[in-house]
Amino acid sequence: MVTVTVLAAVVQARTEVVWPSMCGHNSLFVGRIGDWTWDAVGAACGIDVMNTHDSQGRPAYLSFCYFRIRGGRRFHLRTPTFGDRLQVDTALYRTRGQSVLALHRIDRSPRRHGDGFDLHEFVTAGDADRLYVQTLNRWVARSREGSNQALLRSLPSDFALDSLPEIPPSYCPLPTMRRARMAYTLRPAAAVLSGEGLRLDYQIDPSRDLNGVGLLYFASYFSIVDWALLRWWRQQRRTDETFLGRVVVDQQMCYLANVDVSVTISADVRAWRPMTGPRPHSEFVEVVLRDGQRRLVVSTLEILTDDSR
Amino acid sequence: MVTVTVLAAVVQARTEVVWPSMCGHNSLFVGRIGDWTWDAVGAACGIDVMNTHDSQGRPAYLSFCYFRIRGGRRFHLRTPTFGDRLQVDTALYRTRGQSVLALHRIDRSPRRHGDGFDLHEFVTAGDADRLYVQTLNRWVARSREGSNQALLRSLPSDFALDSLPEIPPSYCPLPTMRRARMAYTLRPAAAVLSGEGLRLDYQIDPSRDLNGVGLLYFASYFSIVDWALLRWWRQQRRTDETFLGRVVVDQQMCYLANVDVSVTISADVRAWRPMTGPRPHSEFVEVVLRDGQRRLVVSTLEILTDDSR
Repeated sequence: MVTVTVLAAVVQARTEVVWPSMCGHNSLFVGRIGDWTWDAVGAACGIDVMNTHDSQGRPAYLSFCYFRIRGGRRFHLRTPTFGDRLQVDTALYRTRGQSVLALHRIDRSPRRHGDGFDLHEFVTAGDADRLYVQTLNRWVARSREGSNQALLRSLPSDFALDSLPEIPPSYCPLPTMRRARMAYTLRPAAAVLSGEGLRLDYQIDPSRDLNGVGLLYFASYFSIVDWALLRWWRQQRRTDETFLGRVVVDQQMCYLANVDVSVTISADVRAWRPMTGPRPHSEFVEVVLRDGQRRLVVSTLEILTDDSR
Repeated sequence: MVTVTVLAAVVQARTEVVWPSMCGHNSLFVGRIGDWTWDAVGAACGIDVMNTHDSQGRPAYLSFCYFRIRGGRRFHLRTPTFGDRLQVDTALYRTRGQSVLALHRIDRSPRRHGDGFDLHEFVTAGDADRLYVQTLNRWVARSREGSNQALLRSLPSDFALDSLPEIPPSYCPLPTMRRARMAYTLRPAAAVLSGEGLRLDYQIDPSRDLNGVGLLYFASYFSIVDWALLRWWRQQRRTDETFLGRVVVDQQMCYLANVDVSVTISADVRAWRPMTGPRPHSEFVEVVLRDGQRRLVVSTLEILTDDSR
């Protein structure tokens, strides 16, 4: 078998110092990655991403529909702490269907010289000292003012994707997302159900979950998933201490819908053991958030178990 | 009466664009102000605020012990939204007792020219288009590893306050903080109790409330206070919609203690009507968080009522 290595052009390179407002046992670091996506898209596509409108004059938002974060034991989502210096390289692509794919490669500095942006390395998460983040975004607008229920696909008139290369099909997350939409799962096919599942109610919190334009903040979904994960963790008779020490080496999240405030949603948590793959002793925990029959989010976390550490 | 105007030296001027990760119905903007405080102290006192140790080698943290945010109807804590540009001017002082007082004046740009940093204007919150923020910080260290219960006053060996001017006594918040510590209140003296109070339990959430070094994040206290405020709001038969539209023109928070994870704390909420003052139709809502007999936080929010809008 011949391995084809695709080198991507980096469209943005940034050095970030980790402040208290961007790390911790919360979704602050994820929120910051979201900003980096928006910043890169604005710079590459020549658009003011934070203030743009669709053809009918409605505010348009560059909404997240897929997020994947892969790391390793030495550097995962909750590793960054006060004062760390990070090198963030970002490459942008378009997909068929007017979506923007951002690939962020996050290194702890000092940055190693001579490293190209290798798409194959990226998608296989080949370096345990790096975080590899993919985010796929689409423009949306509210169909009714004051409601987050029925967001519409949208396209600002001043937005041009043509300057971006199309992502090679084998690296495109759209098929994964389709699977999440159809089968409500992102776990590997070869896996067996493990232990008891759990169903929980979560009330969207108007004092905590909304962003600056009144939508449920995408990073809040990460917090709600972790909220559900913690309760499942306790059901497995695991301690809060081990929860704080959890190593999530891969988290995928597929966003299906936004939601209004003060609504109670349900969270279904189930765990799976992989039968094959590079880490047979890890576990896949799946969290699906629903608002009645409507799925809001499908997320899968691959967590290293004690056996695999 | 002669009004003495004290002009302060600005030690840091920054322009900030408001990204999604720093605004909304949450504590993200407050968290960012905390970063600005640390950044200014690091720059002015020549210390790496995110990586320093006391004389016994224990990590030392520039902990918040007082926070006050004053704004107006046109510009208050939850006004900033996607894409706003802010001009932040910061002045630093020392107090008697080795604390650092940071004064942040936050303007929506374009900045008006010729504005000095007028301490009197600052303390009276004299301009309704500005946010005036005071933060008082002290160094602390853990007395026992892994516990947030008994933090000790600390002083990094490489920290020198001498370069900062002493804050004039009439502008120093230490007496206010003493009152909060003794009487557990920050409301004005001339006020009458209004309506029913409320006592709530809140369980510290390990998936959401901790910062990057495992302490309860100072900004999480703002979220917990808002969590309690919302429940009191509903008890008053007010809608979530009016909660989202609340205008908090003055919020003071005095931090008395940190707390361990997975602990259930109690929140006492009471409201007061001022009998005198510039806004007789506003209301003062007081939230006190306790861990058993130990007070964690005393916070008072001045909220504009419909009458005062």
